[in-house]
Amino acid sequence: MFQRPRGTRDFAPDETARRRLALEKMRETALRFGFREIQMPTFEELELFTKKSGPGIVNELYAFKDKGGRDIALRPEMTAQVMRFYVSDLSSLPKPLKLFYFGPCFRYENPQSGRFREFFQFGAEIAGANTPETDAEVVALASAIISAVGLKGFSIRIGYIGILRDMLKELKLSGEEIAAALHFLDKNDVEGFNLFALQKSISKETIESILSIRNLKGDTGILADLIDGAAKNYLKEMARFLSLLGVRDFQIDLGIIRGLDYYTGMVFEIDASSLGAEKQICGGGSYDLVPLFGGEQVFTTGFALGFDRVLMAAENEGLPQIVDELDVYVIPVGDSAREKVLGIVEMLRKAGLSVDYDLMRRSLSKNMKYASLAKAKKVIIAGENELAKGAVTLRDMKSGDQKEIKIESLIEEMKK
Amino acid sequence: MFQRPRGTRDFAPDETARRRLALEKMRETALRFGFREIQMPTFEELELFTKKSGPGIVNELYAFKDKGGRDIALRPEMTAQVMRFYVSDLSSLPKPLKLFYFGPCFRYENPQSGRFREFFQFGAEIAGANTPETDAEVVALASAIISAVGLKGFSIRIGYIGILRDMLKELKLSGEEIAAALHFLDKNDVEGFNLFALQKSISKETIESILSIRNLKGDTGILADLIDGAAKNYLKEMARFLSLLGVRDFQIDLGIIRGLDYYTGMVFEIDASSLGAEKQICGGGSYDLVPLFGGEQVFTTGFALGFDRVLMAAENEGLPQIVDELDVYVIPVGDSAREKVLGIVEMLRKAGLSVDYDLMRRSLSKNMKYASLAKAKKVIIAGENELAKGAVTLRDMKSGDQKEIKIESLIEEMKK
Repeated sequence: MFQRPRGTRDFAPDETARRRLALEKMRETALRFGFREIQMPTFEELELFTKKSGPGIVNELYAFKDKGGRDIALRPEMTAQVMRFYVSDLSSLPKPLKLFYFGPCFRYENPQSGRFREFFQFGAEIAGANTPETDAEVVALASAIISAVGLKGFSIRIGYIGILRDMLKELKLSGEEIAAALHFLDKNDVEGFNLFALQKSISKETIESILSIRNLKGDTGILADLIDGAAKNYLKEMARFLSLLGVRDFQIDLGIIRGLDYYTGMVFEIDASSLGAEKQICGGGSYDLVPLFGGEQVFTTGFALGFDRVLMAAENEGLPQIVDELDVYVIPVGDSAREKVLGIVEMLRKAGLSVDYDLMRRSLSKNMKYASLAKAKKVIIAGENELAKGAVTLRDMKSGDQKEIKIESLIEEMKK
Repeated sequence: MFQRPRGTRDFAPDETARRRLALEKMRETALRFGFREIQMPTFEELELFTKKSGPGIVNELYAFKDKGGRDIALRPEMTAQVMRFYVSDLSSLPKPLKLFYFGPCFRYENPQSGRFREFFQFGAEIAGANTPETDAEVVALASAIISAVGLKGFSIRIGYIGILRDMLKELKLSGEEIAAALHFLDKNDVEGFNLFALQKSISKETIESILSIRNLKGDTGILADLIDGAAKNYLKEMARFLSLLGVRDFQIDLGIIRGLDYYTGMVFEIDASSLGAEKQICGGGSYDLVPLFGGEQVFTTGFALGFDRVLMAAENEGLPQIVDELDVYVIPVGDSAREKVLGIVEMLRKAGLSVDYDLMRRSLSKNMKYASLAKAKKVIIAGENELAKGAVTLRDMKSGDQKEIKIESLIEEMKK
């Protein structure tokens, strides 16, 4: 017997229906927010991903050489692809450009709860608008998408990496040194940061004020503790826009660093409390990547959302199990009925109903059992005598009521 | 600048919307026929595919070793996966099991019109029912799915590989010899077949009758030329069921061989005339694969449909270009209006409308230009004085009519 590859999943009909419905709600929400969908290939040149995330990412990738000797990798995320696509084809579209995407991504890591080797991401980006309301729009979309799936227990934390970046820049540190400092802070390595700061002769006072920024967490009131300046104004304005867009339940958390060099200003994360250790379901912020991929500087902000984790969290909360119900199952009784019911099947399908019928020439009782397993809402029993009168028996599977119906009245009756 | 990998595609918003709509129609059609969707991983153990299609397929695959040294391949098609999934998890579900699936598949071949290295397949299978109406159901579904997308110029050809198989079996040929004989016939290599037949001391008469079977093409009337037997009865019955299901425009073509050993009885192909050399858009039939993957023998029949080719053919016929229209674009005029419109944006989105608004703080005229490029159906212009009266201006972008509307009447007015 063949095994499914480790860390991947098959989805049976009930689960596929549930996932499909969740995705449809996410997509509808993004369209309602004026975002439009794009699609990119499942694999890319390896260098696309190392350029964005550094050479270290190779260890986590499904990377290989194709038959032409090219270094290829299955995508671990989609933002790098959006950037490539933007530079080659999309940059001339009217701004702001509001895009979303969904698809499988791949990481070679040890499978565990909430971590798969093939997982699914839903993401969105806005390019070309650099106002606080643009960042607010992105966070509002993430929140609306998660709510649309039915998840209630999630919390939004909003930070601003630009504050720490600016403080470090004022110390005349190089880009690499700033990245190193942020790395210590991201990993919560205070000792490492202190050592680094001492080497760079940073004053105790400055070290304290940098470390204290990370602890600023709470409602928008905590912004009062921040030194006046562009960052403070930006965050205050963004927070106001966000609440006007109906998102009132969020926290300010200036400790969010996100560990990647390309974030420039606002950063945010969303957690689902029911998920335990792997609780982050969404992360994003404003970033500067287009020039890295050969395009002109443009303000970009966006997020990626872990589709599988959002669904796991919603299921933990008892998301109702969706089942595609069959509108009607048609059972012919007798050999001549077998052909005659096909016209009825075709008529009902044309009317938009989901219709199945006896393909196995089984007995009435076996067919009734199958109809019940297939969760048919109604059953049509078509006997030869009834058909001769232009009628069939329609049975409601929930109530058990059944009555004889003229074939020409079936659609009307079924749509009741 | 980074290049997209050769033979792959990006899809910009307009094209993604068109593809999404086509897929949605296919999916709705399959659900109406009582099929249910499943999903499988993007890659599998290499052996899953060589087991089904022979070792020769490795040359066409994206095959590689993962970091654990396992031989992995991106899927070139999905039936092998359905079989693996069926054997491990689905075989206990009530029969008949009617399944469909959609996803990207991968083949390392020279890209050309209608052939991509990453392409998309839509497929369906029925397991557990072995009647002519089961085969008819599968062909009817393929036909309905193609029609649902809007394609008109396609032709269905139905054959029965079981006839040639039985004739060759009667000559006491081994399984391998039968495969070799069918291979000659599939490639239309009459000389090769004659040589092979002479070596096996097959009589001239038998050779003639085998070769003549391949030329039986036409409406169901040609079945009269066939020797009486199970195959003839099966095809006649299936053809009758198919026409009762509303599919009347098909041909019998006993020359269809499909070149793969696992087809057992009915086989069919669908071509789109507008596509030229690569005109086949769908192929399928009844097959015997479950035992190969370690399961118990079960009757299976199904098809795979080339999603990209169906769309190309529909576009050749002038399929209307679908554009997601934005219901309304909201333009604040003046600084205090900027915040006040957000409540309107949120209200309209909650009502299910697709709504975008000025994120870039542009002038009224620039905003009007953007609204027109974004194909907004309506525009709301919200000036400070109007907002103070609880009203806005609503403009119809098609007619150019505009009028002042109370905010509380906006949803009602928008839904007109």
